[in-house]
Amino acid sequence: MRSLVLVGHGSHLNAESASAVYRYAELLRSRGLFDEVVEGYWKEEPSLRQVLKTCTYTDVTIIPMFISEGYFTETVIPREMGLGHQGVVPREGVARTLGGRTVRYTLPYGVHPAMTEVILERAREVLPDASGEDTALIIIGHGTTRNENSNKVVHQNAALLRERGLFSEVHALFLDEEPKVTSWRETVKARRVVMVPFFASEGWHTLETIPEDLGLEGTVTVFSAQADGVPEGQGEQTVYYGKPVGTHPAVADVIVQLAEEARGASLTGGDRSPEHQAAWNAFMALAQEGARLGEILVTPHGGLFDVRHALDEGRSSETLVTLVTPDGLRDHTRLTESGEHRPVHTLRNLRRGWRAVLSEQDLPRAIHSLYPAVIEESYACQTHALRSTPWPTTARRQTGIYSKVQKATPEQVEHVAHEVCGGCLKTRVWAGQRLNQTFFGGVPGAIPCAEACTFLVAEIREEVAGKRGQASGHSH
Amino acid sequence: MRSLVLVGHGSHLNAESASAVYRYAELLRSRGLFDEVVEGYWKEEPSLRQVLKTCTYTDVTIIPMFISEGYFTETVIPREMGLGHQGVVPREGVARTLGGRTVRYTLPYGVHPAMTEVILERAREVLPDASGEDTALIIIGHGTTRNENSNKVVHQNAALLRERGLFSEVHALFLDEEPKVTSWRETVKARRVVMVPFFASEGWHTLETIPEDLGLEGTVTVFSAQADGVPEGQGEQTVYYGKPVGTHPAVADVIVQLAEEARGASLTGGDRSPEHQAAWNAFMALAQEGARLGEILVTPHGGLFDVRHALDEGRSSETLVTLVTPDGLRDHTRLTESGEHRPVHTLRNLRRGWRAVLSEQDLPRAIHSLYPAVIEESYACQTHALRSTPWPTTARRQTGIYSKVQKATPEQVEHVAHEVCGGCLKTRVWAGQRLNQTFFGGVPGAIPCAEACTFLVAEIREEVAGKRGQASGHSH
Repeated sequence: MRSLVLVGHGSHLNAESASAVYRYAELLRSRGLFDEVVEGYWKEEPSLRQVLKTCTYTDVTIIPMFISEGYFTETVIPREMGLGHQGVVPREGVARTLGGRTVRYTLPYGVHPAMTEVILERAREVLPDASGEDTALIIIGHGTTRNENSNKVVHQNAALLRERGLFSEVHALFLDEEPKVTSWRETVKARRVVMVPFFASEGWHTLETIPEDLGLEGTVTVFSAQADGVPEGQGEQTVYYGKPVGTHPAVADVIVQLAEEARGASLTGGDRSPEHQAAWNAFMALAQEGARLGEILVTPHGGLFDVRHALDEGRSSETLVTLVTPDGLRDHTRLTESGEHRPVHTLRNLRRGWRAVLSEQDLPRAIHSLYPAVIEESYACQTHALRSTPWPTTARRQTGIYSKVQKATPEQVEHVAHEVCGGCLKTRVWAGQRLNQTFFGGVPGAIPCAEACTFLVAEIREEVAGKRGQASGHSH
Repeated sequence: MRSLVLVGHGSHLNAESASAVYRYAELLRSRGLFDEVVEGYWKEEPSLRQVLKTCTYTDVTIIPMFISEGYFTETVIPREMGLGHQGVVPREGVARTLGGRTVRYTLPYGVHPAMTEVILERAREVLPDASGEDTALIIIGHGTTRNENSNKVVHQNAALLRERGLFSEVHALFLDEEPKVTSWRETVKARRVVMVPFFASEGWHTLETIPEDLGLEGTVTVFSAQADGVPEGQGEQTVYYGKPVGTHPAVADVIVQLAEEARGASLTGGDRSPEHQAAWNAFMALAQEGARLGEILVTPHGGLFDVRHALDEGRSSETLVTLVTPDGLRDHTRLTESGEHRPVHTLRNLRRGWRAVLSEQDLPRAIHSLYPAVIEESYACQTHALRSTPWPTTARRQTGIYSKVQKATPEQVEHVAHEVCGGCLKTRVWAGQRLNQTFFGGVPGAIPCAEACTFLVAEIREEVAGKRGQASGHSH
């Protein structure tokens, strides 16, 4: 029995940031190759700090959903997940035993050799008759920012494809380093030019920056480009602009390959984690009686469970949107009633107006998506087994732009937490707040906070930098 | 049986704005001269639009808690309360029959002749031995802003006190008009100078602007002032700076006098309003069984009622702050957990961590303070008697700086409401949203919104003015 964890960056601001990881998780779930597929994020929940606790099994494979090696895959993810590893990840990955689990951490999918085929797939999509003659392939990379090594993998793929001789020319060009995409006309001789962005997702760069730097207009996939000073009809090149590699469905296959390679000789997999099982057994026993957890109400009903916002208790079904899958519930509750992103799920802003009707089998994943890690951490708290992380430890762990939070005074931390955490259901056990009961003891809003989340860390950084405005969300 | 309504300005921003009105209401309640004392505000709840509905009796006297006549007493209050009167209020006040109630509207307390004695009281506090000789009295007014007539009443009081000959000089000086306070040294000859601010409350003007304009430093009540260019010891004047008249306890007596004068020949008073009684009887029947209303939970317990945040259900009493009076409950829940002001009580940000233990007699006022007018309006909705006010009607009613909301497009109104009202418990019946059940039908969060509140009106004004930022309350 194995848990697969897909790890993304996530965002405190943008609800769409996590959607690529969600989609691959769903795709892999539907294929049934893993007993469980879980997502984890740096700047959303389930957070990197919590996600291991939420894994059902003791055999866990973690795949960084990044296009290249660098700061996130070598520093942030191993550090936040407590892997006891920093720096370059060897080709075979890193394996550790953590809290009774065998945890395998792989390279990011983007550096896997199978990505070369994904590049070719993207090229064929925009130019199906791509014969080698007079056709250039340009792989576009971001180039080095901070310590991302996105150039290395782009150069490697270009070299491999050049060797295979499928195109008359193959080039690696970059947004932020030499050779730059802006120089493509000086480099590329072929009259047909296929461009494939080696990016993780469709976004600002693939939709705006790159076409602009190329001197192309519009958002269609086929462009005509006429070099300056060259007579009309001569030197005209047609550009076929592909979609980013990171959104191709074949990436799911790359993930499966990565996980299989990480598994190595181990064929048996793991068992159910006893802590995980105890927490969820306790929750399911509660749910059978009807439970209140944070802002939600769980009611058993004819062998199924009705889950809804407690403020919608008793509301007739025809006035509610009915959801029947954990993923549907997750997608429906990702934004507040005002349409704002909810990077922290325990902020008291869960929207109303829906009910989920779920089987006993689906209920845990639904609750996990509403309140990630809350069952596991609350059960640990209820049984006096929760370990909390005091602020100085959290602060010391920070790197990069967040390392300056180490300069925050205790008063600044408390001041920011008072404002930011006031809207959160959780009780800051890490700051010495007492929690004698949890919702397992019948108090719906009693949920422990074991350590400062990245949302609070980011706000404390703003405070230290003197950039924090008024906490009030209103402009008057 | 009579209801007394004290009407203040209130604030969308500042939690302290309402406190003077609260204090007089408590003082008058403790004297027991009225069967009920209710507060109402323009920019807080209970709002001017709702407050009449919340009055228990059919004989209602409304006192504007303002220092002078002007825009609020002559335009905003009569308009918002639907008094069918605009402009100067006659000395005997205005009497109307509205929705089965006899409603009397008086002049603001500040223009009552008894205020002359309050000025003298304030003067005696800072200079108890104020003999007339070589002692000047300066009454400081704000001066005309918009169409406030604060100068008139200050000049009148100065003239009256001049006639009484208690001081060697009596002057009326102003912040914003001639004669200005900055010129006091040119005007005042006496060596002892008593200054009394004719202001409604202690605040920015009385604590900072006036002392600065006077050229005084510090915040003590006795100052030495030495005129420029005059030899030391000559021309030295001692300033005794008093507290504002509007915070003197004797103002409560002025209010009682105003109300008595408004009552005129009517001695019998009113009865219980049948609509009000029906709504509260229905609520009390619910409460006897245990009720959920918005974010709160009401539980009958040994002849008393336990009221708390529903998220604190089951929480042991020793971990909660226990409150035993409606006023204590109101004061404790005026701010969010983050310390922010709550001008709209149905925003989903009621703090946790308290319980109120209340008698059957105190419960209604406690619920009224938590959710003003919610019982009355929800009961009307439940019995199909709620009248809602569509946006165009609300917009047309606006005057002054708010009249520009009439320019808002339906899309702008909906856009701002979507953001602002997303955090509110209420359902916008005024915008066509359906509410088939209320909490009287067992749905805790089902509360009707009969019309746009002033908070939303203010946000729509910002939108029309192009000043509205992002709705998100976070800086990153």
